[in-house]
Amino acid sequence: MAELGDIVNRHNVKQFEIARVAGDSRPAKDFVATEEPLEIRLGYADSQGKRSERSISITMRTPGNDEELAIGFLFGEGIIRRRQDVMLVRPCGPPAPNGLINVVRVELADDVAVELKRLERNFYTSSSCGVCGKASLDAVAVQGRFDIHADDFSIARATLGRLPAALVTQQSVFEQTGGLHASGLFSASGEIAAVREDVGRHNALDKLVGSRLLQDAIPLRGHGILISGRASFELMQKAMMAGCPLIAAVGAPSSLAVELAQEFGITLVGFLKPKRFNIYSRPDRVL
Amino acid sequence: MAELGDIVNRHNVKQFEIARVAGDSRPAKDFVATEEPLEIRLGYADSQGKRSERSISITMRTPGNDEELAIGFLFGEGIIRRRQDVMLVRPCGPPAPNGLINVVRVELADDVAVELKRLERNFYTSSSCGVCGKASLDAVAVQGRFDIHADDFSIARATLGRLPAALVTQQSVFEQTGGLHASGLFSASGEIAAVREDVGRHNALDKLVGSRLLQDAIPLRGHGILISGRASFELMQKAMMAGCPLIAAVGAPSSLAVELAQEFGITLVGFLKPKRFNIYSRPDRVL
Repeated sequence: MAELGDIVNRHNVKQFEIARVAGDSRPAKDFVATEEPLEIRLGYADSQGKRSERSISITMRTPGNDEELAIGFLFGEGIIRRRQDVMLVRPCGPPAPNGLINVVRVELADDVAVELKRLERNFYTSSSCGVCGKASLDAVAVQGRFDIHADDFSIARATLGRLPAALVTQQSVFEQTGGLHASGLFSASGEIAAVREDVGRHNALDKLVGSRLLQDAIPLRGHGILISGRASFELMQKAMMAGCPLIAAVGAPSSLAVELAQEFGITLVGFLKPKRFNIYSRPDRVL
Repeated sequence: MAELGDIVNRHNVKQFEIARVAGDSRPAKDFVATEEPLEIRLGYADSQGKRSERSISITMRTPGNDEELAIGFLFGEGIIRRRQDVMLVRPCGPPAPNGLINVVRVELADDVAVELKRLERNFYTSSSCGVCGKASLDAVAVQGRFDIHADDFSIARATLGRLPAALVTQQSVFEQTGGLHASGLFSASGEIAAVREDVGRHNALDKLVGSRLLQDAIPLRGHGILISGRASFELMQKAMMAGCPLIAAVGAPSSLAVELAQEFGITLVGFLKPKRFNIYSRPDRVL
């Protein structure tokens, strides 16, 4: 079983002794998606130009593509805006007792002004009109930099319907554990250009967006994003920040995800299956 | 369609005009789970005994049972420990433009010492041995107050297998939108004692635990918790804080969820189906 052996050697799955119940109960081994904390440390120049360091986030993630996760997270929060804002990103040792390096360090360029207040509480609090969905959308509008245009992207119905199966064939661990969310970047012809996986769907998307930022390929004008689960406000916000014109979710969208898509002209597809799906906003991009 | 009418009048679903694609594409109306921000404000006595107020969290949630959500959140974070720690919990107006009240205020008793530092960053950072899964488990051990005993609870295999169907019949909106996570409290005889729903699975569990705390029914010794999605570290931490002896998930567990269950003697069931499931720890409670 060379294939299983390959998987065990990776940090993104872990094997456990379990009881498998199916009529009777018998001992078995099962693969489970790894979940471990990742600390993101930020090095930056303060308002006096002095280099400072600060731990800004701990997220529970599946190890792998940690640099991309850190970069995607910082981009989604509006801390960095482009490839050149990042001088260096690297895992920061020593390894934890289990052999994993669970700290990643990002050094920002001197000219990046860091508003750390943003990270202290959810950003959309500060809207003057109070706490509501509209205020949350307004906060996204303030942060977002890329306009989404109608002619950015279009895709055929049948091509869209083939994406979930195409994503699964590119997923490495999903079939063994059923425990990983995936985000995939796809072209108008239905080619999956990149896939990132994680136990947390926000992490999977951060990794995907981070990978594009590190390749200086943001905004994502020529691509759509496929997500394996549901579409929430948080995921739509991250996709909108990356300038993505079309989001397709295998699961259901939330009300605020639909409203965000409508407000910013993003095409939002939900319940995506081979021959059936719903389009919640801007159906003109689906041909 | 009296039933749909009832649903539309509630704040937990919202209707949108969509394009439904199935062969052709046609306009349709679709119900979507509501997602709106909720701010939790805390009133408490500071170290000098002076009453203070502070906004401590904004979470994206589905409106409904907001008081329970706030109480469950504070309990999961270790800020409150029992019913008597809460003097008052109530929605805090005025309503947002959409008619929803998106702020809930919790007044703590004077003798509750509040460690706000806990809320500023994820709590498990502070472990001396660094950032890793084991450190995360150690942090949970410090916070947890209830020992889980082997004889707290047991349930028959067949009873366990019937729970997912029983949960769905008690869910109000799930079938219309497919967009809500649910947490259900069940007895050894398979009776669903309470169900709470939310777009966020952590919120659904916070609501459920909060409802029990407000009824002074924590720890949950005589009950198990069923969750509609995957079992992550965060959900297991909340269940462990509530002293729950058995967690059953319809989806997959993560590695750290399994490790938490093993460390604290909680029975963890995953991939729960009528006739098949996996038991990841303490199978002795499943008869």
